[in-house]
Amino acid sequence: MMWKPDRQGKKPLYEQIADHLEQQISYGEFPPGSLLPSERKLAEQLGVNRSTVILAFAELRSMGIVESRTGSGTRVSRTKWEAMPKHTPNWSRYCEGGSFLPNLPFLRKIREALAQQPSLIDMASGELSPDLAPTDEIAALMSEHRYTSYLGYDNPQGYVPLREALVGYLDAYRKIQTTGSSILITSGSQQSLYLITQCLLSPGDAVAIEDPSYCYSLPMFQSAGLRLFRLPVDQDGVRPEDIRILYKKHRIKMVFVNPNFQNPTGTVLSMERRRQLLHIASELGLPIVEDDPFSLTAYGEEAPVPLKSMDTNGSVLYIGSFSKIAASGLRIGWMVAPHSIVERLADARQQMDFGLSVIPQQVAAQFIQSSYFQPHLERLQLQLQFKRDLAIASLRKELPDSISFTAPQGGLHLWCQLRHDVPDGKLLEEAVRKGVVFVPGSVYGSDAGFVRFTYARAKAEDIETGISGFAQALRELLS
Amino acid sequence: MMWKPDRQGKKPLYEQIADHLEQQISYGEFPPGSLLPSERKLAEQLGVNRSTVILAFAELRSMGIVESRTGSGTRVSRTKWEAMPKHTPNWSRYCEGGSFLPNLPFLRKIREALAQQPSLIDMASGELSPDLAPTDEIAALMSEHRYTSYLGYDNPQGYVPLREALVGYLDAYRKIQTTGSSILITSGSQQSLYLITQCLLSPGDAVAIEDPSYCYSLPMFQSAGLRLFRLPVDQDGVRPEDIRILYKKHRIKMVFVNPNFQNPTGTVLSMERRRQLLHIASELGLPIVEDDPFSLTAYGEEAPVPLKSMDTNGSVLYIGSFSKIAASGLRIGWMVAPHSIVERLADARQQMDFGLSVIPQQVAAQFIQSSYFQPHLERLQLQLQFKRDLAIASLRKELPDSISFTAPQGGLHLWCQLRHDVPDGKLLEEAVRKGVVFVPGSVYGSDAGFVRFTYARAKAEDIETGISGFAQALRELLS
Repeated sequence: MMWKPDRQGKKPLYEQIADHLEQQISYGEFPPGSLLPSERKLAEQLGVNRSTVILAFAELRSMGIVESRTGSGTRVSRTKWEAMPKHTPNWSRYCEGGSFLPNLPFLRKIREALAQQPSLIDMASGELSPDLAPTDEIAALMSEHRYTSYLGYDNPQGYVPLREALVGYLDAYRKIQTTGSSILITSGSQQSLYLITQCLLSPGDAVAIEDPSYCYSLPMFQSAGLRLFRLPVDQDGVRPEDIRILYKKHRIKMVFVNPNFQNPTGTVLSMERRRQLLHIASELGLPIVEDDPFSLTAYGEEAPVPLKSMDTNGSVLYIGSFSKIAASGLRIGWMVAPHSIVERLADARQQMDFGLSVIPQQVAAQFIQSSYFQPHLERLQLQLQFKRDLAIASLRKELPDSISFTAPQGGLHLWCQLRHDVPDGKLLEEAVRKGVVFVPGSVYGSDAGFVRFTYARAKAEDIETGISGFAQALRELLS
Repeated sequence: MMWKPDRQGKKPLYEQIADHLEQQISYGEFPPGSLLPSERKLAEQLGVNRSTVILAFAELRSMGIVESRTGSGTRVSRTKWEAMPKHTPNWSRYCEGGSFLPNLPFLRKIREALAQQPSLIDMASGELSPDLAPTDEIAALMSEHRYTSYLGYDNPQGYVPLREALVGYLDAYRKIQTTGSSILITSGSQQSLYLITQCLLSPGDAVAIEDPSYCYSLPMFQSAGLRLFRLPVDQDGVRPEDIRILYKKHRIKMVFVNPNFQNPTGTVLSMERRRQLLHIASELGLPIVEDDPFSLTAYGEEAPVPLKSMDTNGSVLYIGSFSKIAASGLRIGWMVAPHSIVERLADARQQMDFGLSVIPQQVAAQFIQSSYFQPHLERLQLQLQFKRDLAIASLRKELPDSISFTAPQGGLHLWCQLRHDVPDGKLLEEAVRKGVVFVPGSVYGSDAGFVRFTYARAKAEDIETGISGFAQALRELLS
């Protein structure tokens, strides 16, 4: 035995010896049931008094690691090392750890219901149905253009040809003049918002968010420790003067808005309010985050130009995405921002996931520059309008007196107010039983009595059945 | 004028009036230089005493918003609203905000140098050179298999067919038996580590990390507020008994190891230590995170089986990736973990980026099941070995007496100790001037005097030139 206790050590000799024996036992040098060296022999080997070894054995005995019987020496305990030898990590405690909050219970319930019951009519997921996505066009582009780029780590800001293609796209479709160096490619708007809340704001910072808003469905704001203040949305969007009041009261650090076909209400921020909002932002030196996923879905008239294109002061961080106008499964979004911000967020994103795959970025760049893009948009607009009209006709037929809404002029969603008081959770449960899911308005921060129907995700032929199922659920709860 | 001050309000009437006028001015209702209504007229309109209006004007004057000259009334100030009317957000303060730390200065310097000077020989980036990546094979697969899947949001755990393909891959190549429900597809090992540090650990938690380790190059551990404790790596890897000591002293909550061809040292954890490590983990109920990106690069003998395949106790979270054996630009990695952990991390990841694009996941699934995969691996192993030998031969020729290293049997990196004391930063700067970049060892947490050369990234014909540039830089600093 090479090991010797350390006579200069802080720990008493007997403890050192007990620790060492425990370790040897745990490595299997003394298997369960085996005999340890006698007290006398061990004392000799270690150069200590026999009484020290007796104390060490007593220590191990008290921990249940060894057993001594008079006359038969000291043995490694069988029960300790065989019956209860192992501890699996307490995984459930690890799952509850971490500052990052789980998704909202309603959203997890909806996801579980959809996974368990594939026949459910999905009026909850904010995305396009398979027939609205340009799957064939993308498949054609992938086989037309042989993939040749180097498959190494991408530029931290995103694939250069995609950023160049987006410069043209933003100019043509959104009247935004920018350059490739002011663009960051992200994994959809979701990652843009995540990077902003994680990297530009600190715990305790106050921010202003529309009420209701998609943002309330994202625990990431709470995970980042932000204090959220509400900007009520009326038929013309948020009231800019509310921002000034919040700034004076709470020193808000950032404002989040979705001016075109707001999620969930579908409202469009009026031109006058856009001007006022930008004016206040420049007066207060306040950054505006403009989320603009729906503009190109506008059914009739073109959507108003984004705040970003009117922003002569550099107040706006602009967020866009292909998720609602092409395919959420591309996972391609972008942010247009001052270069210093783009650099900071690109650096952080490198640490989180090392950027996006080059392959879908190349596909997206080809798609927006292809002759497929414009016809796809036109078809999408018509079909979304058709689905909206189906949803509205069904609601008017099924629930003429129980529900009110304003027909949205773009986007994927219909925001409805119920005339009766019904508990959110019960209504969702009952609707699942009737074969349909929607999102309760409380998920978006509104009071009880609101629901969001997504008409884009379901097949056109299922919309009436879905609304009818919802109507049955509502009637049952009211009866 | 519809607005009236609120006589029941907390604010004095004159302040309410001043606020209201300031707002009207800021909206442009009274442009710069324009005349405000007279005190008398305003008092009448608002139903207040003239003295209240006088106080309100005085308030606005003190803020520089209006100017009064005797006899000529009160005008909106030009200087306030024209010369200094606008405040761009203080973006640099936002960039410094956020709890998420930027990348290490050395790494940002290397990235900048590579961006500015594309002719630099890159012996710093931990990835394969274009000729080692299976770009042609992947392009061929993309045009052979027409893309047909629905391009909607992916399953939160990742594309089901890829998870199924990985079950076969893990069994065949890593002797790990698992099921699709225990696999989470991630954006490379980087995102696996990010999710673990963000979601399973809390600020203040202690964790044990190899010393040196790739992990020290990731500020994400500090960003998550973790306390890091070191497990020194010798020629056989970490010493398991050190884990027990750290556990007793600091109650470490998790251990991070890279057992095969460790980054940066290239060492392989011995079989005996693997058994001891698992034993200690099960004794303490301590989770082990096993990062295993390099095993399939083994040049000669097969790499030892992973801890995960020996783990009968459920202690190991296993992380793998295609970045080092196929292409980092696919951004495909995976984690094998208890289902509760996979679910928790999948839920969090939904919030961060809504998952990965389906397209590269489909490509990856096709690739590992294709007849291209095994020949690719064999070619990769031979070529990496060839490049390693080139790097070693150049170092022996250029710096026979100044540098020592152990030839790695797999992986992408050569870890070298310098015999002389040279400041890290100066050496890197001088090397950039000589046309080559490497990573200073301090980035991986080691003392000064170590460097990591990646021989996989540079072209074979550039390796000798690169090493020679480094040698010149070193000689210049020593002279």
